[in-house]
Amino acid sequence: MSLLQNTLAGIKPQDQDIRRQAKDRLDRLTMPHWALGRLLDLALDLAGMTGSLKPPVDRRIIVTMAGDHGVAAEGVSAFPREVTGQMVANIAAGGAGINALARVADAQVQVVDMGAACDLSALADDGSILSRRIAPGTANMARGAAMSRDQAVHCLETGIEIANLFAAEAELFGTGEMGIANTTPSSAIVAVLTGATAEEATGCGTGIDDERRKHKIDVIEQALQVNRPDPHDGLDVLTKVGGFEIGGLAGLILGAAALRKPVIIDGFISTAAALLAQSLAPASADYMIAAHHSIEQGHQLALARLGKKPLLDLDFRLGEGTGAALAMNLVEGAKRILTEMATFDEAAVCKGNGKA
Amino acid sequence: MSLLQNTLAGIKPQDQDIRRQAKDRLDRLTMPHWALGRLLDLALDLAGMTGSLKPPVDRRIIVTMAGDHGVAAEGVSAFPREVTGQMVANIAAGGAGINALARVADAQVQVVDMGAACDLSALADDGSILSRRIAPGTANMARGAAMSRDQAVHCLETGIEIANLFAAEAELFGTGEMGIANTTPSSAIVAVLTGATAEEATGCGTGIDDERRKHKIDVIEQALQVNRPDPHDGLDVLTKVGGFEIGGLAGLILGAAALRKPVIIDGFISTAAALLAQSLAPASADYMIAAHHSIEQGHQLALARLGKKPLLDLDFRLGEGTGAALAMNLVEGAKRILTEMATFDEAAVCKGNGKA
Repeated sequence: MSLLQNTLAGIKPQDQDIRRQAKDRLDRLTMPHWALGRLLDLALDLAGMTGSLKPPVDRRIIVTMAGDHGVAAEGVSAFPREVTGQMVANIAAGGAGINALARVADAQVQVVDMGAACDLSALADDGSILSRRIAPGTANMARGAAMSRDQAVHCLETGIEIANLFAAEAELFGTGEMGIANTTPSSAIVAVLTGATAEEATGCGTGIDDERRKHKIDVIEQALQVNRPDPHDGLDVLTKVGGFEIGGLAGLILGAAALRKPVIIDGFISTAAALLAQSLAPASADYMIAAHHSIEQGHQLALARLGKKPLLDLDFRLGEGTGAALAMNLVEGAKRILTEMATFDEAAVCKGNGKA
Repeated sequence: MSLLQNTLAGIKPQDQDIRRQAKDRLDRLTMPHWALGRLLDLALDLAGMTGSLKPPVDRRIIVTMAGDHGVAAEGVSAFPREVTGQMVANIAAGGAGINALARVADAQVQVVDMGAACDLSALADDGSILSRRIAPGTANMARGAAMSRDQAVHCLETGIEIANLFAAEAELFGTGEMGIANTTPSSAIVAVLTGATAEEATGCGTGIDDERRKHKIDVIEQALQVNRPDPHDGLDVLTKVGGFEIGGLAGLILGAAALRKPVIIDGFISTAAALLAQSLAPASADYMIAAHHSIEQGHQLALARLGKKPLLDLDFRLGEGTGAALAMNLVEGAKRILTEMATFDEAAVCKGNGKA
């Protein structure tokens, strides 16, 4: 079997027995029942994902994948295409939003060039990014397929390879991306995989006005009409309207799920990648944690399809992995509650009875 | 002037000039405009509070104040009164929720006995808590004033003293509390200071059923009728329907505001304390950060009165300072964004133009 087939076959649901054991302990901790709400739900998930009552989440990595998009030629973004490479250099130098927020979580940031249009070899040569270039940007999806089916498989297997590469040193993954125009393919993916219209799945990206957004919707509708992606085949969706960094992230998520490691899904683009992963292996959703609610229109649709409610809602729309980084401390909190709090018996605290 | 008068007179609004300077820098950082949303609003606040473009927030303390309540005799809580002391011991031993979550933020937890009904002298003697006992629990507010006006001043000045005590070693404060039945006085305070009915301001606390909640509302209505607290006099409200730990936290908040240090307000009870502080010194609200949205009914009313939108919404209803602890990493994130991100010019990244 290929790496992709092997990985898909290796993704199993959460461990229900460990979940039950975790629930039993959480029920007995010194607090009113379930008084830490969603942090306790998260603790259950961490136990089920890792198969452990002491879920390891201390060593953390944000994998920020970069790529360019042929569809940028249609004028769908507020920023020029060269910004992808400039921002990769900014992240590599430690000056971007993701660098600042990853430091809060004590997380490593690893940039992977999946196919930027510019030459990033100097950054790859000095070890500040990993080079896994599929091609210098995708083809324009408004005119035909964004990539070949082989390239789509290559994207996914690259993401799996990156997950495996960091398997020994990372216990908790976060996704991030950088790619001018990449809300456009993401909206196309979300529309196909949720059954929404292009209009429902399309927002203002990095900050376009209403008129430009209308144009963006037209471009996405054209891409869907030209390519007719099969909503039951995630690989076809990636091929027709995807992006190299989006496919790479889908692979990273599949790889993390096969390793039984939690993976925090950042914002809109990362969630589009998560939908691709879910489409290829439904059980992979068992390993996903939704970081934050993006203000990008369509994110809510994608989250609903994944069955996820995000941890944070702070009006973010940056990407790079910034929301995932900020959610890492919440994951740590959930783990500490499960492993460090005393039970009523251990602490000799009387239990309550709320009945009249 | 007394310590209280001095402190109230020393509370000034945020520094508008530094806020403007912070805004100018945030506008030029390498991201789409305001793409980190509420984290940037928070960064502005931190600059305005501390009067610095490099707001110091690294050294952190959660002050968890404990007290008992005469009104517990009316059967308003799901837990017996001895749990206040048992939970203080649990926090002192490091086994409570607040201990686990404070470790995520690398924050110290300081318990202050403001007036538990039981004897906590052993914990005070070995230095694991601070003893600032006003009395062994308040009087039953359903029958008369919860405390004397002198005791109310004493509560507030104790909180101010605690803020000053930690002024040298703490840059960021968080509030927390432990006191069986303390949602009852908190609901009374919120009702008086927001103009809401007892019914609107009263929830299920640590987990009482509907019938017991109706009884709790009756008790609060009786307390308001017996005492007639003056909604324009925070000191009178504290005297009539307050609690020692609630008054202590109001003092802590006032003390932090006078020191120009940010103070993270935890959940419902802490927000009742914040309303008292606001009532005594409206500008103190300039130094408050709302941590999370509690599921306790009435919290939203109190937050609206403060003009605050909380950072987190995770269905918490524990108190102790747990929400404040979890919000501390978000505060760190806001500070790092302001101080560590590169501008477009510094990183040589092209700016966007979203117009069609």
